[in-house]
Amino acid sequence: MSIVVQKYGGTSVADIARIRAVCERVIRARKDGHEVVVVVSAMGDTTDDLTAMAHRLTPMPNPRELDLLLTAGERIAMSLLAIAINAAGLPAASYTGSQAGIITDTRHGRARITDIRPGRIREALDRGAVVIVAGFQGVSTAADVTTLGRGGSDTTAVALAAALGAEACEIYTDVAGVFTADPRVVPEARKLHAVSYEEMLEMAAAGARVLQLRAVEYARGSGVMLHVRSSFSDEAGTWIREADERMEQAIISGVVHDTGEAKITVQGVPDRPGIAAAIFRPVADEGISVDTIVQNVSKDGLADVSFTVPKADLSHAATVIDRVAGEVGAERFTTDDGVATVSLVGAGMKSHPGVQADMFSALAEAGINIEMISTSSIRITCVIRAEDVEAAVKALHARFALSEQAVVREH
Amino acid sequence: MSIVVQKYGGTSVADIARIRAVCERVIRARKDGHEVVVVVSAMGDTTDDLTAMAHRLTPMPNPRELDLLLTAGERIAMSLLAIAINAAGLPAASYTGSQAGIITDTRHGRARITDIRPGRIREALDRGAVVIVAGFQGVSTAADVTTLGRGGSDTTAVALAAALGAEACEIYTDVAGVFTADPRVVPEARKLHAVSYEEMLEMAAAGARVLQLRAVEYARGSGVMLHVRSSFSDEAGTWIREADERMEQAIISGVVHDTGEAKITVQGVPDRPGIAAAIFRPVADEGISVDTIVQNVSKDGLADVSFTVPKADLSHAATVIDRVAGEVGAERFTTDDGVATVSLVGAGMKSHPGVQADMFSALAEAGINIEMISTSSIRITCVIRAEDVEAAVKALHARFALSEQAVVREH
Repeated sequence: MSIVVQKYGGTSVADIARIRAVCERVIRARKDGHEVVVVVSAMGDTTDDLTAMAHRLTPMPNPRELDLLLTAGERIAMSLLAIAINAAGLPAASYTGSQAGIITDTRHGRARITDIRPGRIREALDRGAVVIVAGFQGVSTAADVTTLGRGGSDTTAVALAAALGAEACEIYTDVAGVFTADPRVVPEARKLHAVSYEEMLEMAAAGARVLQLRAVEYARGSGVMLHVRSSFSDEAGTWIREADERMEQAIISGVVHDTGEAKITVQGVPDRPGIAAAIFRPVADEGISVDTIVQNVSKDGLADVSFTVPKADLSHAATVIDRVAGEVGAERFTTDDGVATVSLVGAGMKSHPGVQADMFSALAEAGINIEMISTSSIRITCVIRAEDVEAAVKALHARFALSEQAVVREH
Repeated sequence: MSIVVQKYGGTSVADIARIRAVCERVIRARKDGHEVVVVVSAMGDTTDDLTAMAHRLTPMPNPRELDLLLTAGERIAMSLLAIAINAAGLPAASYTGSQAGIITDTRHGRARITDIRPGRIREALDRGAVVIVAGFQGVSTAADVTTLGRGGSDTTAVALAAALGAEACEIYTDVAGVFTADPRVVPEARKLHAVSYEEMLEMAAAGARVLQLRAVEYARGSGVMLHVRSSFSDEAGTWIREADERMEQAIISGVVHDTGEAKITVQGVPDRPGIAAAIFRPVADEGISVDTIVQNVSKDGLADVSFTVPKADLSHAATVIDRVAGEVGAERFTTDDGVATVSLVGAGMKSHPGVQADMFSALAEAGINIEMISTSSIRITCVIRAEDVEAAVKALHARFALSEQAVVREH
């Protein structure tokens, strides 16, 4: 029997009525002849509520204890879903991250999965039960409860799908799939039928909230096919899978924007080998993920280095950079939380020169100034003022005619 | 360094302000030179709220899953308290029942502790940390999460105190100690300085809600001294300990009433050896605790057997008795949920004849009819109509002058 892993986000299990709806969907998958493993997030805003309680006690909660606290949310969701499925007459059993064999390192709040030991899950499936697993959590090699960071339930689902050899990993969420742009900004945005892992990675990195970057990385590394779809309808969503010659390949898959980043610029950095490592190693050691990095051409042996970090990490990053700037002999540094990024992502970009120029002129015609540019082989990201971001997304979506099925065949 | 175990009930950790107050009390105990182990219940009505959610899904939630659900409550309370204590500068670590080594049998919802393996707690104490343990829960020999039943946090606290060789086990609650009667019924009721395990067992069995019966049994069996006191003040509460010759020994320690019981009467039971076992074994097998049992003198070879069960278990018990009555050849059975019990408890009763007669005449003078009577060496319980219970408590409290320090020395 083939295994399907289904992951339901917080909005999909937000109340008893929605848990019942999930229960019905699980039963349908079981009746379609699949073994079903369900990964759940915490109900609605539970995780935020628990975090807020901890922060009423202290601005810096003990990380081990915070992880114990936050994992209560998925525990509640998973057991309620198991109760619903059992009550519907289908055997079901729920497992915490620890019980499910999700082994992680010891970095509380940002733990990484180091091993999956799905013995109990396999046993439960073998006796015909639907298995429900708490997302977002694991147990560390030091026998402490850990969490995988915001959105970690996606990673739990993909990791389990890989470990169990699942046919597919379905990610149920409150949007209908991956779109050519955020439909709240561009109402005519089109749902994509399929995107490659590579494109989805770039979209996630550029700020697409639909899937966590790590989950996509994990899926690419293990070849797990993802299906992102709405938990409120039965229509097909967006497949994320290996690109192959039969896949319709758009030049541009979508426009992605992100207002959650802030910019730090370190000015007058002595331009010598090892300087970038000296700046970014301490930032990475603090667990802060740096996104776009731009270093300009050196002048008088001094360079400016700009980069973006999540806004939530800005003050933490500034503390680190304050120290590091002194150590590397930089002149000064500035922070700016009034920026946003807008990115074009598309695998066809590689073989179609001129996309970059088209993007820059579309922004220029909309009167939008570009502060930083960073490119990969299938993505172009511009850092602009936050107040320009909607205009930029609309201009780019129109310029590249993304609401039309403009596709090319790859050869 | 001596170990103190402190247990805080749900009202004592009901919100962030109260968790802060508990934090301060823990710090004081630490500064007084004790190693401190704290056992917490779930915040306020959390357990009831979680139970209600499960019951919105089904009247009979899967017991394994319900246990997973309910244990989320203590998990939230314990980690918040650990966060508060850490934030106050004292190292603290919280542990689930499983992590704390509370091993139980596999009876979900009513599990019994079979072993305590306090290795991680001992380690944490040795490195100077305050230890916080989730009450009410353990891990079964089948590696599943279990709960100990309503009020099980008291048992967790006593079991840990015994396993760790603690100096005392302090039970913090929303009342100031054990009283000669419920102060809501008898305003002049007096707080007792000390009662023996034996008396406390009888009081708990008779319906005193201040301590769970199993916790008192566990304390008596292991010799752990209990101190029941208010979490909202610093005044001494009531000590529960071994009776000794220096203990002031009242004839009557208190009047206890209980409106949570219902009565079942099996009529026309053939009076032959083994009949009582045939009736009560199946009830016990269903995990229903039977309290008072009265069997009248046989007439024409037929007896009537009456007993009380918790009201919450009445319909369940009636289902069992319906089957059993047929099997033993009884004529019929009736149920009655309009009863209450009123009990007198006192170790001095043994050496003071006439207490029973005094009790019955006090009730008679108050115009209260007695439906069943049951006695132990230190307790007399009468089953009466529920609507008479307040009048009965007041009459008995007055008759035995319990608001005065009427004590005798034991010899």
